[in-house]
Amino acid sequence: MPDCQNRQNAYHDSTGASGDLTDGNIVFAGYKKTTRLAERESILDAAKNVDIDISAVCGGRGLCGKCRVVVKEGEENLEAVSRLEAMSLSKEELASGYRLACCALLNHGGTTLVEVPPESRAQQQRLLVAGVETPVSRNPSVKKFLVHLTKPTLENIRSDSEILLDGLIHEERTAHLKIGYDAVTQLPNAIRDRDWTVTAAVRDGEEVICVEPGDTSNRVYGLAVDVGSTKVAGYLLDLSEGKVVATASAPNPQIPYGEDIISRVSYASKGERNLKQLQGVVIACINKLLLDTCESASVNSSEVYDVVLVGNTVMHHLFLGITPRFVALSPYPPAIRSSVNVRAKDIGLKTNSAANVYVLPNVAGFVGADAVADVLATEVCNSGALSIMIDVGTNTEILLGNDQKTIACSCASGPAFEGGHIEFGMRAEPGAIENVYVDPSNLEPGFKTVGDARPRGICGSGIVDAVAAMLKSGIINKYGLINTKLNNRRIRTDGAPQYVLSWKDENDAGRDIAVTQHDVQEIQLAKAAIYSGATILMKHLHVEPSEIQKVYLAGAFGTYVDPQSAVTVGMYPDVPLERVQFVGNAAGSGARMALLSREVRENSDRIVQHIDYVELAADPSFQRAFTEALQLPHKDLTRFPTVAQLIKRD
Amino acid sequence: MPDCQNRQNAYHDSTGASGDLTDGNIVFAGYKKTTRLAERESILDAAKNVDIDISAVCGGRGLCGKCRVVVKEGEENLEAVSRLEAMSLSKEELASGYRLACCALLNHGGTTLVEVPPESRAQQQRLLVAGVETPVSRNPSVKKFLVHLTKPTLENIRSDSEILLDGLIHEERTAHLKIGYDAVTQLPNAIRDRDWTVTAAVRDGEEVICVEPGDTSNRVYGLAVDVGSTKVAGYLLDLSEGKVVATASAPNPQIPYGEDIISRVSYASKGERNLKQLQGVVIACINKLLLDTCESASVNSSEVYDVVLVGNTVMHHLFLGITPRFVALSPYPPAIRSSVNVRAKDIGLKTNSAANVYVLPNVAGFVGADAVADVLATEVCNSGALSIMIDVGTNTEILLGNDQKTIACSCASGPAFEGGHIEFGMRAEPGAIENVYVDPSNLEPGFKTVGDARPRGICGSGIVDAVAAMLKSGIINKYGLINTKLNNRRIRTDGAPQYVLSWKDENDAGRDIAVTQHDVQEIQLAKAAIYSGATILMKHLHVEPSEIQKVYLAGAFGTYVDPQSAVTVGMYPDVPLERVQFVGNAAGSGARMALLSREVRENSDRIVQHIDYVELAADPSFQRAFTEALQLPHKDLTRFPTVAQLIKRD
Repeated sequence: MPDCQNRQNAYHDSTGASGDLTDGNIVFAGYKKTTRLAERESILDAAKNVDIDISAVCGGRGLCGKCRVVVKEGEENLEAVSRLEAMSLSKEELASGYRLACCALLNHGGTTLVEVPPESRAQQQRLLVAGVETPVSRNPSVKKFLVHLTKPTLENIRSDSEILLDGLIHEERTAHLKIGYDAVTQLPNAIRDRDWTVTAAVRDGEEVICVEPGDTSNRVYGLAVDVGSTKVAGYLLDLSEGKVVATASAPNPQIPYGEDIISRVSYASKGERNLKQLQGVVIACINKLLLDTCESASVNSSEVYDVVLVGNTVMHHLFLGITPRFVALSPYPPAIRSSVNVRAKDIGLKTNSAANVYVLPNVAGFVGADAVADVLATEVCNSGALSIMIDVGTNTEILLGNDQKTIACSCASGPAFEGGHIEFGMRAEPGAIENVYVDPSNLEPGFKTVGDARPRGICGSGIVDAVAAMLKSGIINKYGLINTKLNNRRIRTDGAPQYVLSWKDENDAGRDIAVTQHDVQEIQLAKAAIYSGATILMKHLHVEPSEIQKVYLAGAFGTYVDPQSAVTVGMYPDVPLERVQFVGNAAGSGARMALLSREVRENSDRIVQHIDYVELAADPSFQRAFTEALQLPHKDLTRFPTVAQLIKRD
Repeated sequence: MPDCQNRQNAYHDSTGASGDLTDGNIVFAGYKKTTRLAERESILDAAKNVDIDISAVCGGRGLCGKCRVVVKEGEENLEAVSRLEAMSLSKEELASGYRLACCALLNHGGTTLVEVPPESRAQQQRLLVAGVETPVSRNPSVKKFLVHLTKPTLENIRSDSEILLDGLIHEERTAHLKIGYDAVTQLPNAIRDRDWTVTAAVRDGEEVICVEPGDTSNRVYGLAVDVGSTKVAGYLLDLSEGKVVATASAPNPQIPYGEDIISRVSYASKGERNLKQLQGVVIACINKLLLDTCESASVNSSEVYDVVLVGNTVMHHLFLGITPRFVALSPYPPAIRSSVNVRAKDIGLKTNSAANVYVLPNVAGFVGADAVADVLATEVCNSGALSIMIDVGTNTEILLGNDQKTIACSCASGPAFEGGHIEFGMRAEPGAIENVYVDPSNLEPGFKTVGDARPRGICGSGIVDAVAAMLKSGIINKYGLINTKLNNRRIRTDGAPQYVLSWKDENDAGRDIAVTQHDVQEIQLAKAAIYSGATILMKHLHVEPSEIQKVYLAGAFGTYVDPQSAVTVGMYPDVPLERVQFVGNAAGSGARMALLSREVRENSDRIVQHIDYVELAADPSFQRAFTEALQLPHKDLTRFPTVAQLIKRD
């Protein structure tokens, strides 16, 4: 084999990839990709040069430990192990060549061979784009009209605009139509191009925004966008038919600047340039979704005349280029609550240049336009029945009320439900353990992974399932403590107590996958944050859990979690399961509804005025409610009658 | 002298400039500027490389003959004399090395030495920026308000927008204030920067367009712009005081693309790129005027929050990037008549990014926003008295009427009044003969030049003066024919008849400056176009010249021409001179009024609806009226009673 004879200039790795090694290069094993070494460049940056996506969710600050790589050759070309790496990696790992790609700095020396283990490779996440469908009567903001015009003569000279408006006013049955600047510039050529037959796009029955030659009246599309902290979803709708014609989604590209919202706020607050950077990446992402959906539906992006966008308040601010700095500082005021209209071209969206972007209103700093969209998509503010809506995320928004009164709060539930701060936590990517069962007779676990792949870690629904199963089987008690006195091979007592789900040789994680004492505690903190928020809202409305007629669970987590497990750990009020409805990506549904109906938009601004925001930090009883909710399922078992039965029975 | 010893590599010219000559260069004598020879590049383009401004007003198409240069050395480096040059230059001139800079193509050969004679050098034109001042009650579109805001608390969380609007609504006394997108992006930092004291700029009492920290309430400026075919004028106004703080003007940079409007329309109609080019140069010019006026008034251009613009319909379309193609084709429809609002930043103006540009409405394809501004600045549509407004230019707009009814037309008066198509015609630059007197006893002329410089040519007011003086002294008869039978040294009879104003050795033109038979004919055609237009309007309103109470003469020409001379040649109705008022750049005055008053803007849209446009080409009696008006002053002398007396007396 020739590459063996010249070992200095060749490599081959465990995946069978091989190639030439030249001095001053960094080679990524498995990817067959090589790039020049630059002095004092991190491995993470070198990987970006050759488009290798190493997962780092802390913005490359050495905090998340998700970018572990193994240096196979040329360790001498790296600067010494940093303090952050020493904290994040075990001695054994450091001895085996493990480094954090974001911390390990390259010298401009010889050739370095780096392996990116599977758990550090960013993979296609399972992103929820479906949501509850609530029918609306179609009345989109932008409508097209075909008009046949009358030529001017020397005896009857009218301007092109007057000729068009005269033709349109009959169609639109309004006397107050005006013509926008962009449309005026298109007008002279457009009306003469197809013998005085044109199609005009009219916004809100008020303004001609676009004029096209001939008949294009059946080509009118709109894009609904849901910008989540984790993922961005786009829905292309045919506005004349009122149907979704394509959907696409992508991870939020702001994640490398900070996985959680507060990190991003902190990054954006450092200066105008950072703010523009976060705005820029999300807009580029939306443009990608626009082009992808357009391509798959054979639509030209210039046929997209309207955009509706939802997101939490920080996503809302970042998208619009408004500093989110003060949203994160008490008393957490948003820059604006009411809906915002901005021109697509002003913000850089590559739709038709006359398109408008309607951004739904916010309720408060931590109850944003996405929560308003949730409300639009459900009956929370529209029905006489008392309902609660819980949109689970790093910040969980809760709305409780009916058509008379609705109140809202936001809970700092943290990233545990998304796999964050969990020892083996990961996103719902292939190989993530998503369902867990514990055999009460021998405490042996059973589980299912996303895509039925070999296990790599545990995602949010998996960890909730695991904690519920551990509670029911007695592995943990109501305080969440692992019972280390149980003599079982799955329960480790050396070091921090933990319960092993998957042995090293059965998985792709490189070590035993377990639920640690700390993991259980994270889930307790997270679910207590949510439940205590619900408690404060119930107190404000003077209602008991049993009076709640409907529980809406929204968000990706809310769709994949087992509702019984969630209520077992005490996440939401213990109501009969038939009252629980998963509404999936309700924010996306609300955005689509607003795209199809001007009345829904008007309603959304009314709804915001109708919702009272409750700041938990300002409520004196919050601390006590939180402490009581830390127990599994709750200190007051009478609040969880069915769970009490379950624990007893098991 | 060392440069004599090495003749090949040096030059010195008549102006005393000298320098090294290297092979393959073109040297502009007098300017001391040298540039590399490029193959098949015109001398005009080579001159542009080194910022030498050779006057060419036909767009470098070899038509105007204004770019005559003398090739002093290296004639062999030029391609042969073109057909256009042969037509434009006399045999003597060609023998002396004269070429047209736009036609003479360079080969990449030796060194060429070129002299640009004074008459071909573009000089600072005398541009009229002053105009009639009509007082308006100050109510500008943009006003600033200083507000002291109340901080939000945990108990009373409001968004930044709500806090601002609550503070402002009290000041503005309106409940319907909204906040613009740009202002929202500024808001969070602005309100916290000076301890919750901010200044908000509000447009039309409806929308907050800008928020600034602290008190900037006395810094609010606006720009009024008059885009003429020949010059662009800018007026910077303090909107809080209602005063002009600086003015500036510049030649319209579209001139090189065609001096007359139709040439520019033809250039712009060749494609989107050409259109954008003409738009781009005029916007760059306005930006220059903006920065110049701001600098001289110590204003930052971001303190300019509002812009008003006027111009004829083609200038209007070109500024807005609307194709003017159909404005020049029968039935000459403009793209839009009503006023247009466009954001300054959309069009590339470097004012405050939230500034709006209000473009006044047009009446018709050849009666544009400038004519509407004329009307605003005078009493044409606002008084019971019958008035006529004549805005003299290449196209002359005429409006006749009172507050009951006004009609308008446009006359193709041609460029003669601006010195175009006149043998020695030039703009009103230093050296232009502007007043002419003829001694009836010996037919010897007297004249005055602009800046009292040595004569270089004759400008518009000079040629009208000359023709009137020649008529009164009998040098020409009522048909405009030069009486070659008069035995006078000033009257040339060899070749085309002409009357010499200035001998070669007394001037800087390089030859005798004369008024030719053809020049007189041009003036007859031009004045007949205007007077016959006025005749048709009078016929439409069934009025006689004597019933006209007021004649407004607008435009630069209208300010500098001698009113008696103008009426002597028969340019406008023969009314007592005290009824004639020069309103100068009335278009600029109208623009300033619209900048200071929302009511004036509303009025301008009403006025346009109130003016009936008369298309002269569609009037069957036009041809006859035109033919009658060709005589000096008119075929029907009873229409010019005072002039008839004058001619008789002389």
